[in-house]
Amino acid sequence: MHWFVFVIIAGLVGVAAVCWAGYATWSVMRRSRGTDKMKEIQAYIRDGAWAFMLEEARIMAICMAIVGAILWALFYWEVAVAFWIGSILSMTAGFIGMNAATLANGRTTHAARSSIKEALNVAFSGGSAMGLGVAGLALGGLVLVIWLFIREFNPNVVQIETKNILGIPGADVNFIKGAIIVSAYSAGASLVALFDRVGGGIYTKAADMAADMVGKVELNIPEDDPRNPATIADNVGDNVGDVGGLGADLLESFIASIISIMIIGLYLYVGMQAGDSGILDLLARYGPSFALAENYWWTILLPLLYVSGGIAASLAAVAFIRFSRRRENMQAVLMNGTRLAALLTAGFAALITWLSPSNFVPFFCMVLGIAGGIGIGYVSEYFTSSQYKPTQQLAHAYQSGPAVGVTEGMAVGMLSTLWPCLIIAAATVLSYQMGGLLGTAFAALGMLSFVGMTVSVDSYGPIADNASGIATMSGLEPQVRERTDELDAIGNTTAAIGKGFAIGSAAFAALGLIAAYLWSAAGSADMVHVPNIPIIDPRVGGMVVAGMIVGAMVPYVFSALLIRSVSRTADLMVQEIRRQFREIPGIIEGKATPDYKKCITITATGAVRKMVAPSLLALGMPLVVGLLFGLDTLAGFLVGALLSAVVLAVYCANAGGAMDNAKKYVEEGNFGGKGSPAHAAGVTADTVGDPLKDTVGPSLDILIKLMSVVSLLFASLFIHAPFGP
Amino acid sequence: MHWFVFVIIAGLVGVAAVCWAGYATWSVMRRSRGTDKMKEIQAYIRDGAWAFMLEEARIMAICMAIVGAILWALFYWEVAVAFWIGSILSMTAGFIGMNAATLANGRTTHAARSSIKEALNVAFSGGSAMGLGVAGLALGGLVLVIWLFIREFNPNVVQIETKNILGIPGADVNFIKGAIIVSAYSAGASLVALFDRVGGGIYTKAADMAADMVGKVELNIPEDDPRNPATIADNVGDNVGDVGGLGADLLESFIASIISIMIIGLYLYVGMQAGDSGILDLLARYGPSFALAENYWWTILLPLLYVSGGIAASLAAVAFIRFSRRRENMQAVLMNGTRLAALLTAGFAALITWLSPSNFVPFFCMVLGIAGGIGIGYVSEYFTSSQYKPTQQLAHAYQSGPAVGVTEGMAVGMLSTLWPCLIIAAATVLSYQMGGLLGTAFAALGMLSFVGMTVSVDSYGPIADNASGIATMSGLEPQVRERTDELDAIGNTTAAIGKGFAIGSAAFAALGLIAAYLWSAAGSADMVHVPNIPIIDPRVGGMVVAGMIVGAMVPYVFSALLIRSVSRTADLMVQEIRRQFREIPGIIEGKATPDYKKCITITATGAVRKMVAPSLLALGMPLVVGLLFGLDTLAGFLVGALLSAVVLAVYCANAGGAMDNAKKYVEEGNFGGKGSPAHAAGVTADTVGDPLKDTVGPSLDILIKLMSVVSLLFASLFIHAPFGP
Repeated sequence: MHWFVFVIIAGLVGVAAVCWAGYATWSVMRRSRGTDKMKEIQAYIRDGAWAFMLEEARIMAICMAIVGAILWALFYWEVAVAFWIGSILSMTAGFIGMNAATLANGRTTHAARSSIKEALNVAFSGGSAMGLGVAGLALGGLVLVIWLFIREFNPNVVQIETKNILGIPGADVNFIKGAIIVSAYSAGASLVALFDRVGGGIYTKAADMAADMVGKVELNIPEDDPRNPATIADNVGDNVGDVGGLGADLLESFIASIISIMIIGLYLYVGMQAGDSGILDLLARYGPSFALAENYWWTILLPLLYVSGGIAASLAAVAFIRFSRRRENMQAVLMNGTRLAALLTAGFAALITWLSPSNFVPFFCMVLGIAGGIGIGYVSEYFTSSQYKPTQQLAHAYQSGPAVGVTEGMAVGMLSTLWPCLIIAAATVLSYQMGGLLGTAFAALGMLSFVGMTVSVDSYGPIADNASGIATMSGLEPQVRERTDELDAIGNTTAAIGKGFAIGSAAFAALGLIAAYLWSAAGSADMVHVPNIPIIDPRVGGMVVAGMIVGAMVPYVFSALLIRSVSRTADLMVQEIRRQFREIPGIIEGKATPDYKKCITITATGAVRKMVAPSLLALGMPLVVGLLFGLDTLAGFLVGALLSAVVLAVYCANAGGAMDNAKKYVEEGNFGGKGSPAHAAGVTADTVGDPLKDTVGPSLDILIKLMSVVSLLFASLFIHAPFGP
Repeated sequence: MHWFVFVIIAGLVGVAAVCWAGYATWSVMRRSRGTDKMKEIQAYIRDGAWAFMLEEARIMAICMAIVGAILWALFYWEVAVAFWIGSILSMTAGFIGMNAATLANGRTTHAARSSIKEALNVAFSGGSAMGLGVAGLALGGLVLVIWLFIREFNPNVVQIETKNILGIPGADVNFIKGAIIVSAYSAGASLVALFDRVGGGIYTKAADMAADMVGKVELNIPEDDPRNPATIADNVGDNVGDVGGLGADLLESFIASIISIMIIGLYLYVGMQAGDSGILDLLARYGPSFALAENYWWTILLPLLYVSGGIAASLAAVAFIRFSRRRENMQAVLMNGTRLAALLTAGFAALITWLSPSNFVPFFCMVLGIAGGIGIGYVSEYFTSSQYKPTQQLAHAYQSGPAVGVTEGMAVGMLSTLWPCLIIAAATVLSYQMGGLLGTAFAALGMLSFVGMTVSVDSYGPIADNASGIATMSGLEPQVRERTDELDAIGNTTAAIGKGFAIGSAAFAALGLIAAYLWSAAGSADMVHVPNIPIIDPRVGGMVVAGMIVGAMVPYVFSALLIRSVSRTADLMVQEIRRQFREIPGIIEGKATPDYKKCITITATGAVRKMVAPSLLALGMPLVVGLLFGLDTLAGFLVGALLSAVVLAVYCANAGGAMDNAKKYVEEGNFGGKGSPAHAAGVTADTVGDPLKDTVGPSLDILIKLMSVVSLLFASLFIHAPFGP
């Protein structure tokens, strides 16, 4: 049987997932959108979200055209086309998520008028359209790229020369064409994901902050009050940030973890063919049948098939939740669905491994990744859920005022880095012991494989959140809002696990990409051989250490840029809101309609403009370091950035989550409840934590992957760097 | 001429510095302490500071006895004695600083009643007693240790066996006894410095926060108001934290940067004698006469002599300031003094190099360190001084409320990491290119060499701060407070440079210690050879990467523990203050005296108790990692911790500094001045920033050095780790 048959099977699983997404979207669309008022608000949100994402896409299209043209000039047309396919798919993923979410939000509200179970059905259908649609798209796209460019790819003649252009030396070295093509595909997806996450993250938090600062603090009107001109923009933000950004992010992680395995496998195979002693040692150490055996294509197939299994498992779990009749305890249903997906993924992977010529090492590494991801998720939940001590103690600290509240919130976030880092370290050691860097890359794949399920749950949260907003804005009876709020609360717990997965998998995927980069850097010097980061080597050690220090600094500067973008955009919006209250009479009495559109436009313009600088920093830094200081320095840079970003991302996500939920805990009536000094402190702490958890944290996840994949793609340019060692 | 003559000369310079400290203390003591009320307050502060530091010393003495006993059991009695000498000297340094500061504070207030110039004289004398006393002590102590234990030390027979004890394997390997002795000396100083910094840092910020939270926020009484029961404790905190902690910190940095050079030099020499090809390569690369030549003792002598030059330069600069007649622009005098010290240090170093058999590589590396330290200092100043845009913009952001204020303050801190990291990276590359890891260690020495001067200025700040407090508490005429405030403001600018030096030198000193650790780890395997961190090695790569991730997490958890200690201690104190206002009638009317002592005792007990957990974390983590997972994993751990801690420390120091000075900028009348919403936001932001800049930042500096030196000291135990690669 030709190995490509398996690729086709993987492609079919992807198509099945997309079909489910279509079915889920259809099942949402045939529901009623509710009253005229509700329809009007839904239209506002939907139009605002589409307008922003189209504007974002326009800017991205320009960037993608330029980067693609550069790739075309440097390498081959196939590289540029792969890059464009990756970026277009990533944009599509963002649109699919946003579209499903803006279709489902108002319909969830309407369904909540009859029962909470109906509402869950609609919201979860919307979420699953996003989760499975994006997962299917990622897999399908990868199969397409392989079919287009790597099908006839013969590993015996893979070492081909890159074009010599612009007089850049180092163009005369050997590279594996297939590796460059899949890197370009992944880089395209990464860059779009970063733009989406950064742009969406700035939008959502600027709108949120501005709405809160004027609404809650200055005018003392409740959240989602239709008198607040920023209310609609706030709801738009949930769709473009939490859903659209998440879609692109997921697609990108998925791709990155698959391609890093493929690239390492290819280099191992080529090195084996060339008889490199270090690589033969490696193969002897990790067992000859490990993933590659005599059939190099199994390193391409195995990750594809594992992921297909994960998507099939997610499909089954989603269907289980969608058609489950036991709805007494909805949280248990969601949790059981997630557990089912994890178990089925592991089961499918065992089956696939058993049928393949590989030994069980990749399978064990993958299970390790699944377990690690779940572990990190539970830690996130422990530190950010108001059911546990850390958040409750934080709520207690709110009684001592905003300064202590923020300080203690930061301490919770810092403390929460302990277990995720220990879990990542343990999973790294064990997977590395079993399968070297390739084992680590399989652990990353494990974390991501059933992400179709975790993201379905993750994106159902913002839909429920939006539904609550629409309920309030449309003036529906209070019990509707209560139901949608309950729905939202159920999603929070499962979403915490999803966030843990995102951070853990980003760390592993980046490690896999760095490993692929190292192989590619080692391979670029005429011969493929075992790579190294010569941190103490007298010739290059100083540069590697310096690269590490600069790398460790980049996540901080990147975060600073993001935070500033959020607060500056929020500032513009605050001024606009104040202007409207001043100039449009009757808003506060509820007699006049505020100019929602103006607020939406201001936020959109601000977010799109301000997403460029951080994105260029992420794209540019590895290029500058590599072009000026060479491959070794860049390796140090990537490791430094990875270390710094992982800890900072965990800290930001959990500090922000704990501050938010501690505020909600106070709102539930603890320590004085709403309106108490503790609540005021909580509102301040939450505003500080919001950009940390929703803008900085998720963007850092992509930052490290993007920088790694850019390094991987352009490695051939960095060989004869002018200031290199 | 016997080489020991030079060691004696260095010792004499140390004695000269201590003599100056004695003279300066005497010149402070012969001044008047002012009115009876002033005397009473000074006695309170002085007694409180002594009581706390004695209690702290009692706890430390127990820890030191235990650790020393373990060292005795594992190695030789000399190692334990060296450890105790280091720790006793470090404690003494803390006491010298605190003593001089508590003598000078009230006398500065009294001098300010006649003129600001007189006040500067007193405050600066107090500061210089501390700066030069500690520098002299550090140098003298090191000479003592060398004289006691390394004098007859013959490098041809240095490889001796460590005792086999407790059944720990790996005790049968070769180590250089002299290296272990100086490591133990440095570790003793480090551990005390950490305790001092952590304990003092918790004390000072807990008192400060509690005083502000009740005084400014709840009762709206001004700072340093004698009606506030926490006022005295707040002033005690300045002396035990900002002065006492700083003294121990400085002594420790000084020693660490000297001994890392000595140890690398010894291993290089031994390797050269053994004919190790890698080391012969290194020597050929960096020039045969570089630092060691045929006379191994020059690696011991050169750093000692450079430091002596730095202390002599500091003496000259301090004398210049003390006896300068131009007092029109006092800030210019202080800045010129610092510049003079830097120039003279470089000049002395050039002279010493010229007279020595070494080439000029160590000299150039040292100058690089001086330049780098000054550069980082200026960056700190730019980001934290209200004369520049970042802090002014932050003050502007305070108008949007506390949440935006804190968020923007964090952004300023994050952004400020850019240049320090680039400077450290550049200095690392250049010094490494010139002299390998030894070159980097000389750069660290350069940053620290004239620290006698920078610390004199640094510790004059808290004295002026205390003088202001005493002026208010004693009810002196307002212009006295104005003068002391002006004095305080002058110190702030120069102090920012000092803080930059502290962080930069900590990064370099830690790098030097890690290098020494690597040499020692490489040397422990029977033969001395060029060390390496095998980050991608298939056998140990996974463990090294895992070590890095865990290392990167430790500074966050350490910081979380510190922050929590501060806020929990502050909480206890807030309750006590409220109790006093409730139970002692007439306090708020100024008729009854609050129970200052009770507040002092509560803070002291809290700080002493809560300094233990973070200190044990710092001491224990490298031991756990090393004992369980071996030398390579520990190397990764140290590098990860270094990277993470340096960026976090810069961020914390500058975020806190900017938040503080932006608040002061508002208080000067900008954006509404005192009492405005912007000021309220500034007070909140300052309270958030305070523990970051005064507890977390300085403690992180010591954390990385302590963990490195502990690893260095115990390296022989980590060779046959049970879970090692």
